[in-house]
Amino acid sequence: MALALGLASRGLGNVWPNPAVGCVIVNDGRIVGRGWTQPGGRPHAERRALDMAGAAARGATAYVTLEPCSHHGKTPPCSEGLIAAGIARVVSAQEDPDPRVSGRGHAMLRAAGLAVDVGLMEAEARALQAGFLSRITRGRPWLALKLATSFDGRIALANGESQWITSAPARARVHALRARFDAVLVGGGTARADDPLLTVRSFTPLRQPVRVVASAGLDLPRDRLAGSVSEAPLWLVHGPAAPPEARAFWAGIGAELIEVPLSGQGLDVVALSAALGARGLTRVFCEGGGQFAAALMRAGLVDELIGFTAGVALGADARPALGPLGLAHLPDAPRFTLASVETLGGDVLHRWRR
Amino acid sequence: MALALGLASRGLGNVWPNPAVGCVIVNDGRIVGRGWTQPGGRPHAERRALDMAGAAARGATAYVTLEPCSHHGKTPPCSEGLIAAGIARVVSAQEDPDPRVSGRGHAMLRAAGLAVDVGLMEAEARALQAGFLSRITRGRPWLALKLATSFDGRIALANGESQWITSAPARARVHALRARFDAVLVGGGTARADDPLLTVRSFTPLRQPVRVVASAGLDLPRDRLAGSVSEAPLWLVHGPAAPPEARAFWAGIGAELIEVPLSGQGLDVVALSAALGARGLTRVFCEGGGQFAAALMRAGLVDELIGFTAGVALGADARPALGPLGLAHLPDAPRFTLASVETLGGDVLHRWRR
Repeated sequence: MALALGLASRGLGNVWPNPAVGCVIVNDGRIVGRGWTQPGGRPHAERRALDMAGAAARGATAYVTLEPCSHHGKTPPCSEGLIAAGIARVVSAQEDPDPRVSGRGHAMLRAAGLAVDVGLMEAEARALQAGFLSRITRGRPWLALKLATSFDGRIALANGESQWITSAPARARVHALRARFDAVLVGGGTARADDPLLTVRSFTPLRQPVRVVASAGLDLPRDRLAGSVSEAPLWLVHGPAAPPEARAFWAGIGAELIEVPLSGQGLDVVALSAALGARGLTRVFCEGGGQFAAALMRAGLVDELIGFTAGVALGADARPALGPLGLAHLPDAPRFTLASVETLGGDVLHRWRR
Repeated sequence: MALALGLASRGLGNVWPNPAVGCVIVNDGRIVGRGWTQPGGRPHAERRALDMAGAAARGATAYVTLEPCSHHGKTPPCSEGLIAAGIARVVSAQEDPDPRVSGRGHAMLRAAGLAVDVGLMEAEARALQAGFLSRITRGRPWLALKLATSFDGRIALANGESQWITSAPARARVHALRARFDAVLVGGGTARADDPLLTVRSFTPLRQPVRVVASAGLDLPRDRLAGSVSEAPLWLVHGPAAPPEARAFWAGIGAELIEVPLSGQGLDVVALSAALGARGLTRVFCEGGGQFAAALMRAGLVDELIGFTAGVALGADARPALGPLGLAHLPDAPRFTLASVETLGGDVLHRWRR
């Protein structure tokens, strides 16, 4: 199962709206098949592993990180495939909460006489597949917030200068992280300040993440973002009052426009998050800026924090990583649990989960 | 020498104004003596190791983390002791820059016919003895700045609430760190806001660090700090205009008063630092607050950063760890090099050196 989870992780960022699943087939102590969900979400992991195993699948045990599907979608159900190949036993990490499956995959296997064990390394599988689980059970993607800051939590000087606070290896890692998410998300303030490309550039990913920019009024720079629509999809989330001229311009160059209501000072981020989930996104990587990140945090939408801390001091007059949260009591502050720490390029990379 | 450095580190925080030195005596492949500078600075490491070795010191090699002293102070010089005990060879990590020694210890040993090798693990010895070296060569103590912050670099909510951001194990480690420094230093704002004791309380240290509070006007709470002078020394650094009544009160309860000039918005921190060096402090642990820490940072007095980062978000309306630095260009920002990272109690502890 550990191997199957490792294989599954290869799909992160390039299989949405599907889950990133891994499958290992073992016959008489020998691994005869390995598979993971392919870019775009198909073929599924089980199909790939069965194809590799061929006749050796007969009488074998299949380890899968998620319940095999039971429904006829764009491909025949994997449960049928496992049965047809003569698999004797299926060990699954967890049930698939997708209402089209939801135990029916396991039941179909049992009905065909296969031994089925569920729950092996379930916690690890849930962590790996958190994005898909979030889309299915909460109707919104798993959201990671990245903050690359100085030692004292600043992302730029007062004059906006921010190149560079963290090291080149840390910035390369940001590109690698982008590639593991379905989409990169920033607020309009960051888009206006940095005019970022938001693409994966330090290597060629299997699939460029969707670029999502949230800007109530669609007042965005029209140079680099607009010029790169052929490289990576561009979704613009805007409010009801976005000017028709701006809508027409962005629609004309191929961006997808998503209208959500306003709430308080800006876009309704809960509606924004639901809109991204409805479009199939499972894992979203937010790169700020401070005001937008604070809105997500206040709404309880941040599932993971990814911090890069550099050994530089910028001071309280520099720009904060996170806007105001309006907290009156410390116990009300959102708490996260440390998941991992590493060093790279002289910076500290620390990840936390809600 | 690695063992000698380990022994030397036991003296950190309790041997000032002397250096924390370690000594290991090896005879025929066997360790026959071990010593380190004792609390208060005497006996010296060599004296302790020679006493332990006794007759086995004859013909042996002594490893010392700093050049043995050559001057008659409160104790006879260690160089004489090594010669008298019949040591054949001395391996020393570095020359002692103290003008009373400065090569004369090594020369005295060589003149007596001992083999002397200098420079083994010198970088490690310099790092360990950085406080003493700073006092001798720069006339001021090594200064470590501790910042215990939220994920976004905040030390308290806007209303001042700060108990607790970091975990209990992290706070216990702060006490352990205090015990490794000669003094704990805070600005008057922190003293007024938190009325801290600033003593080592999670265990009983060999020597309580000196408590240093910097307050231009000596407008400090008179309860806990004043009531604990018997537990740990209290030094108050103030400006020329501190009211006579306040001076009389604090002198009356046994605090030491240190007057330094003003500079800009507050005390002249360069003069403050020199005053602490002149009084023998080699290692100072600054615990804030933000304005005072920023003044130290602006003056280039911060040698080490000790960060505790907790997985909690407080927002830009919460209090910053470091006050304004007034930086106009990123390359002007003070840079530090990562020295170590560890996790404790769910927080990240990261240390950096200038």
